[in-house]
Amino acid sequence: MEINNLIWKKAEKIIPGGNGLLSKRPLRFLPNGWPTYFKKAKGINIWTLQNKKYIDFSIMGVGTAILGYANSTVDQKVKKAIDAGINTTLNCIEEFELAKELLKFDKFAQQVKFAKGGGEAMAMAIRVARSNTKKYKVVFSGYHGWHDWYISANLSNLKNLNNHLLKNLKPKGIPKTLKNSILPLKFNDTKSLEKIFKKEKFAGILVIEGARNEFPSKEFVKKINDLKKNKNIILIVDEITSGWRETLGGVYNKVGLKPDIVVYGKALGNGYPISALVGKKKIMNKSKETFISSTAWTERLGFVAALATINFLKKKRVPPLILTRGKKIINGWKKIAKKNNLEIDTNEFYSMPSFNFNYKNLDNEKLHTLFTELMLKKGYISTNYMFVTYAHKEKEINKYLKNCDFTFKFIREKIEDKKFFYSKETRKMTY
Amino acid sequence: MEINNLIWKKAEKIIPGGNGLLSKRPLRFLPNGWPTYFKKAKGINIWTLQNKKYIDFSIMGVGTAILGYANSTVDQKVKKAIDAGINTTLNCIEEFELAKELLKFDKFAQQVKFAKGGGEAMAMAIRVARSNTKKYKVVFSGYHGWHDWYISANLSNLKNLNNHLLKNLKPKGIPKTLKNSILPLKFNDTKSLEKIFKKEKFAGILVIEGARNEFPSKEFVKKINDLKKNKNIILIVDEITSGWRETLGGVYNKVGLKPDIVVYGKALGNGYPISALVGKKKIMNKSKETFISSTAWTERLGFVAALATINFLKKKRVPPLILTRGKKIINGWKKIAKKNNLEIDTNEFYSMPSFNFNYKNLDNEKLHTLFTELMLKKGYISTNYMFVTYAHKEKEINKYLKNCDFTFKFIREKIEDKKFFYSKETRKMTY
Repeated sequence: MEINNLIWKKAEKIIPGGNGLLSKRPLRFLPNGWPTYFKKAKGINIWTLQNKKYIDFSIMGVGTAILGYANSTVDQKVKKAIDAGINTTLNCIEEFELAKELLKFDKFAQQVKFAKGGGEAMAMAIRVARSNTKKYKVVFSGYHGWHDWYISANLSNLKNLNNHLLKNLKPKGIPKTLKNSILPLKFNDTKSLEKIFKKEKFAGILVIEGARNEFPSKEFVKKINDLKKNKNIILIVDEITSGWRETLGGVYNKVGLKPDIVVYGKALGNGYPISALVGKKKIMNKSKETFISSTAWTERLGFVAALATINFLKKKRVPPLILTRGKKIINGWKKIAKKNNLEIDTNEFYSMPSFNFNYKNLDNEKLHTLFTELMLKKGYISTNYMFVTYAHKEKEINKYLKNCDFTFKFIREKIEDKKFFYSKETRKMTY
Repeated sequence: MEINNLIWKKAEKIIPGGNGLLSKRPLRFLPNGWPTYFKKAKGINIWTLQNKKYIDFSIMGVGTAILGYANSTVDQKVKKAIDAGINTTLNCIEEFELAKELLKFDKFAQQVKFAKGGGEAMAMAIRVARSNTKKYKVVFSGYHGWHDWYISANLSNLKNLNNHLLKNLKPKGIPKTLKNSILPLKFNDTKSLEKIFKKEKFAGILVIEGARNEFPSKEFVKKINDLKKNKNIILIVDEITSGWRETLGGVYNKVGLKPDIVVYGKALGNGYPISALVGKKKIMNKSKETFISSTAWTERLGFVAALATINFLKKKRVPPLILTRGKKIINGWKKIAKKNNLEIDTNEFYSMPSFNFNYKNLDNEKLHTLFTELMLKKGYISTNYMFVTYAHKEKEINKYLKNCDFTFKFIREKIEDKKFFYSKETRKMTY
């Protein structure tokens, strides 16, 4: 562990934050104890720089590795594409082919635009939506990346983003003139949804996530569909995190949402950067009246990987498998929590299972940190939330839950231990 | 050619614009005649979907393929990384290693941040710069991508971006409140530079390109350095297009610019998407006080490819080779233009040679289009501007210039032909 820490300390000196992604910082899991760097990964196994092997029951490449690490079916297609050239003066045919493929799943849509990352795809979706309406203000719920349009939510109130995944995000470096261009909405708060569009004359765009911990409620969905009908609002469903897990495409279909644009990323390329806007022609076509273009987007590998990933997901019927396995994990946690007399809450979006200790008078984050620490000793990188993948087989899940059982038992003992809560280091979940 | 056209027409129906990058659209070269799609590429050779081979003396992957297509040294490193996993829960060590490597070239700098594309890297640079100053207005020259901060230049005047690579960009979908947050400056216009920072109280950031057609003049550089000293302005040098061609790192050093942040992209990864901000610690560290983070950025291949590309550039001493070959091409064009009694202008940034027919009373774009059409018949994808790469060997350049000679001769004949100028189709260089 020491070499990892040493390198990380050095990295923090020359890269602000140590890396380019909050979700991969060791402080978020176990300060000073998290393995931090990998040398090799295959399936759900990761080897550290010192060749210590761990099993990944945590975030699996922050939700990208839907088929497991180094999936050979996808990787073979990618390597073949590398041999044939990846970024030339001419276009690769796979950009067109992937657009065609995505339109098979999003029946409401007729057009597609691609990017590499999720954040930039959302920035593009906002530009496209705003090109369609003078009602430029965005009402949003959930997490949608680092770009100005989103983080400006905190210009009017530093707590506006607090209920949307990440707390206390500072809007430094964003022009103050963007104040009030974006308005926070609590997920599934139907009354506020109605109120905000009634009150805000220039609110014409709604952005929500397909699912995070819970699905949109029936009431919430009905109100959104009403607003689309009566106020002509543009609906963007961000499926970057929720898409391609328990469904082929987005989860919006499951709950009856009628988006104008859906946005995919993460799992779509099994780790290779690729993101996509899939939307109605009427809406998407307006992008021709503004300027959206980037060299990196036409590089070939993202398209090739996405085509291979989708094909694998279809052929092996992966989404129902993931759903079943996610349920198994959540039910397993519940069962062993009960057995060990521990109180936990769990979520309902099974492909991204999570549990939370929920003791009113205790520092629950210390318990979550302890969970990670104990699981590492058992050979798992694990925390209280995870992404289920095709590579998490039944047998592995059973073994994992056995280790959770042991860990929960130990945690139960610590709950009465005041000294533990005083001394134990805690992960830093906020920014 | 017909199949390419057919697919492109279909692509335009489901992808607005046909693809994600203006610079790869066939209309910009030869409407209906450009090959549009590739099947395979190696070195400077490209094969179309119909297996027709062309030699690329044009934009070489829009400036990305600095070592030529499918460079086996780089690709082998990438494939090895693929086998070992590309995007896991833990960090890849190459992010840290590339940061260290870049700091060897940018001696003024102490910190690095990465992205995948150029446009998003520039958006990040603006956010970082603005986090450092209340003087948030950006004075700019040159092309810097599709993001709101840049395209908002055209909110106050639709022609503000006209002298900065792309004409008539419409700022649709950008909040009007960003009006006047960014101010255009003619490249090398020292008087305007002085005036604008005198007049604009809130102008505190200057963004220029390292080089495009010409280098910053001595006078221009001196004034910039004065402004840095006296007004504490933050200087961002965009080397996405100019970097890693005739120099290791940026060209800013050549002309005595003293940036706070330089931004790299394109050539840095030899086609694999990777971009970087390299800057002063004092400036870069402020990024920790705002939120900048994306899953796609920590994927491994971009770092691996950039490390391999830089190593190759150093080992084979590529930059001086490219400079020499660029000069050879420009001098070749001049010579055969004179020989054929044709008037052309050429540029001074030799690694990106360009020529322009400059007849006052003629439609010069028709001549440029004809050049492309004739060169295609000779087996070249070629236009009046190009990127020189390591794969453009002397022998190939000689052969290319011989074909240019023939083509110039034919063009000379057409110059007196009124019917030609009436009927000839023209490329569409503007948006």
